[in-house]
Amino acid sequence: MATPTIDLIHQHGSVRNYKSDQVPEGWIEQIIAAAQHTSSSSNLQTYSVIVTTDPDKKTKVQEISGGQSHISQAPVFLLWCADFSRLKRVSEYQGYDIEAGYMENFLVGAVDAAITMQSAALAAESLGLGFCFIGALRNAPEGIRDIFQLPDLVFPICGMTLGWAMEQPMIRPRLPLEAVLHRETYQENDLDYLLEYDQAMIETGIYSGRQVDREDRDPADYGWMEHSARRSSKPSRPHLRQAINKAGFQIK
Amino acid sequence: MATPTIDLIHQHGSVRNYKSDQVPEGWIEQIIAAAQHTSSSSNLQTYSVIVTTDPDKKTKVQEISGGQSHISQAPVFLLWCADFSRLKRVSEYQGYDIEAGYMENFLVGAVDAAITMQSAALAAESLGLGFCFIGALRNAPEGIRDIFQLPDLVFPICGMTLGWAMEQPMIRPRLPLEAVLHRETYQENDLDYLLEYDQAMIETGIYSGRQVDREDRDPADYGWMEHSARRSSKPSRPHLRQAINKAGFQIK
Repeated sequence: MATPTIDLIHQHGSVRNYKSDQVPEGWIEQIIAAAQHTSSSSNLQTYSVIVTTDPDKKTKVQEISGGQSHISQAPVFLLWCADFSRLKRVSEYQGYDIEAGYMENFLVGAVDAAITMQSAALAAESLGLGFCFIGALRNAPEGIRDIFQLPDLVFPICGMTLGWAMEQPMIRPRLPLEAVLHRETYQENDLDYLLEYDQAMIETGIYSGRQVDREDRDPADYGWMEHSARRSSKPSRPHLRQAINKAGFQIK
Repeated sequence: MATPTIDLIHQHGSVRNYKSDQVPEGWIEQIIAAAQHTSSSSNLQTYSVIVTTDPDKKTKVQEISGGQSHISQAPVFLLWCADFSRLKRVSEYQGYDIEAGYMENFLVGAVDAAITMQSAALAAESLGLGFCFIGALRNAPEGIRDIFQLPDLVFPICGMTLGWAMEQPMIRPRLPLEAVLHRETYQENDLDYLLEYDQAMIETGIYSGRQVDREDRDPADYGWMEHSARRSSKPSRPHLRQAINKAGFQIK
């Protein structure tokens, strides 16, 4: 049961080290034109993407996004946004007042942007390009809105570096299938089934910085469970809600 | 510049009429196992999917989702959720208290669910299956949470019908590329460039129920702009915010 697309999805690894080679003329347009065929809630197409190759803009985005150096290194950076600004103009043209203040509006825009972004990512990978999503630009959404001159009702959901990988990226091990796929009703499994995954992640050295097998492990060599628990116990971008409000989404 | 994946993305049309044939044993597992390789914010994998083939559950989802008859007709229904319940259990196991109350947490879960869902959708289409996303289940998220016994910190983002298409679905025309793709900064284009798209949508008859060319048009034959303006001027699932709060996401 293999198709070229299923094989491609299996081979994904995020690319954080790029060659200086450019993305050929016209490729971005073809990638986005394909991704436009992604499903869209009520066909409202409530997303926009801004493409930049400008070193100055990429450097500013990098500063906001925790200094990830591949942002300025990659030849192309794409910004994926929830966009109700276009619908606001359409509504005015047709003689209606837009109502985009509900949580549902923001969620629709975020999901439209996310699924279209994922189609674009797979289209790009099918051409041999590599990418990495940049959620860290939500560290300072208002800075991002300034850089790309986003009007009211346009909010940055995620960024994406794009280019040619310097080396084959690591394919990260994922949770066992039974952790994410439930039958008929949600199953609150106990966590024993995660211990093998935890060990696989320790061995990658992603979290501790060194690859160790079970025998040589010390407390500093932690895996997915400790990583995830630490991340989940800290406040997560507490400024975000207010930044979304300032962009005109009330989230009521 | 064609790849099998780009061709596949271009050919998407949502399927709302299914044959009674089943999805073969093991295919769902293989589709989800592939989709697990989709990028995930900090590798936290904050999503879950629940699969059902139960006629009673599908009928209940259909009632909630505005009566879309393909929900009970399709052999398989998948529910895609933002999931911080698994991380809550992991955090407790590791001795931490989870903090999932911020807007950022909910957004991370929604985007993780959405991009994984889109990978699964493309994997399914590459096998010849058809699908349709069901956002309308957010009409009654608490009803959905009852049906699938979702615990605290698991919230339904989108559903998906899956099966074999009765007939080739329509590929919907999309906005011109320049409407969604901006260079360097966001461009608030005037709307003239939408008029051609508007006419293309009138000709499909999707909104008025009859296909008409420009000469035979009457005011009842409206296109994308009128459709979108009407939709955008109405309150959109005003109960959603509270339902998310009740599921344990404060959205602070």
